[in-house]
Amino acid sequence: MISRQRNICLEIQYDGTDFCGWQVQHNQRSVQGEIEKALAKLHRKSVDLYSAGRTDSGVHARAQRGNFFSSMDSVPAEKFASALNSMLPQDVRIQRSWQVADDFHATRDAVERRYRYYMYPGKFAQPLLDRYRLRLPVLPDILEMNRMASLLVGTHDFTSLASCKNEKTMIRTVYSAHFFYDDHGMVFEISGAGFLWKMVRSIIGTMLAIADFDDPAGTFSRILEARDRSAGGKTAPPHGLVLYSVAYPSHKEQTE
Amino acid sequence: MISRQRNICLEIQYDGTDFCGWQVQHNQRSVQGEIEKALAKLHRKSVDLYSAGRTDSGVHARAQRGNFFSSMDSVPAEKFASALNSMLPQDVRIQRSWQVADDFHATRDAVERRYRYYMYPGKFAQPLLDRYRLRLPVLPDILEMNRMASLLVGTHDFTSLASCKNEKTMIRTVYSAHFFYDDHGMVFEISGAGFLWKMVRSIIGTMLAIADFDDPAGTFSRILEARDRSAGGKTAPPHGLVLYSVAYPSHKEQTE
Repeated sequence: MISRQRNICLEIQYDGTDFCGWQVQHNQRSVQGEIEKALAKLHRKSVDLYSAGRTDSGVHARAQRGNFFSSMDSVPAEKFASALNSMLPQDVRIQRSWQVADDFHATRDAVERRYRYYMYPGKFAQPLLDRYRLRLPVLPDILEMNRMASLLVGTHDFTSLASCKNEKTMIRTVYSAHFFYDDHGMVFEISGAGFLWKMVRSIIGTMLAIADFDDPAGTFSRILEARDRSAGGKTAPPHGLVLYSVAYPSHKEQTE
Repeated sequence: MISRQRNICLEIQYDGTDFCGWQVQHNQRSVQGEIEKALAKLHRKSVDLYSAGRTDSGVHARAQRGNFFSSMDSVPAEKFASALNSMLPQDVRIQRSWQVADDFHATRDAVERRYRYYMYPGKFAQPLLDRYRLRLPVLPDILEMNRMASLLVGTHDFTSLASCKNEKTMIRTVYSAHFFYDDHGMVFEISGAGFLWKMVRSIIGTMLAIADFDDPAGTFSRILEARDRSAGGKTAPPHGLVLYSVAYPSHKEQTE
């Protein structure tokens, strides 16, 4: 009897501060690298890990999603979480593990990625907020920010608001984008089918740069239409950004 | 004309993770030590800093309060915050500075100290919460916790729920104590005139240890009445605890 490999899905949380990002990079500490190291120890051979998104250096993830194929028949699918956690460093933790359909792929099958960007107001840094939020001298006008955010919804060419990394197309679809207040300041939440490199941080950096203009929404609309990265503003720092959640079609997430 | 020393009040925030606590200790990194180092650089002589409370190693402060006497006539009182911040490490930041009455003393004049202890539920650690919250497998029953908390209010001998550090008396007055839910889990807030060494952490550690008992409030009452530290539970870890705020009589906080 040929041993059948099981497809195991992971929900992963990490503090991105001390990582070079998700993706393995030579001589650097990556989230993928740390988990693949633990998987290799467990399986006594190298195991590939796929994920919903390659977060950049310093970007956090609340519920990143990944999958890998396991030849270890003896381990119940839901026990991979604790087995891996016992070998992982403190800043990355598997939240749960379960078996999924053989054709499930964490990158390809994700139908929605949701990001949040956190901000707080103040003249001086607050050490208890500063690790996961961008400090702004004052918060921007939430109505103006939401007028800009609403222009993002839909299918657009995001050349002005992202970095290019050999992409076939700069066209992406945003499902929703809005700002809201929370206990410590303001939060930007954006969801979409997929995002370009540095897209969320370029969007927030650009919006913040023009928030005080006479007509922020008009300016933002012209920037978006320019399809020219130099028309946009700076890329906001990574520490305020969190990959908040990833959604899959429900039939893809369950074992057949 | 004799130069008159001004009494300067500070509101201080710090991430306690990498400090030995508030108080200067030999060969260790303390919050008081870091700020006094900055004050000494600024004044070109040593300057004493007083505070509302000596937080322990690993305990955070959202709005610790301090005061010092300054001979620097040239610096407006409100500018000490930015002057000190430019010399302080990232994990401690002065939030504001202002002149107070000559007889103001940050320790002696505080009429209320307020602490919060943060908890979150989960089988595995969440790296994005773990720095400032205690993980519990499941959250305790909030009604049982509040029944216990209400027993703390008033003037009691807290020998069973604190460590002794050459105190004249173990009697303290608690003004209020209660649990509430927030976005990530549960929060314990307690305010009082003053607290004994490790008192808040002993209280929460004890409550959590007996939360599943048949009659938690009855048990907690007997522990309190025992006036014996061995009757109480373990001291909860420091990273969930924050010195949230300190209150002073308003006439003491303003320059005469």
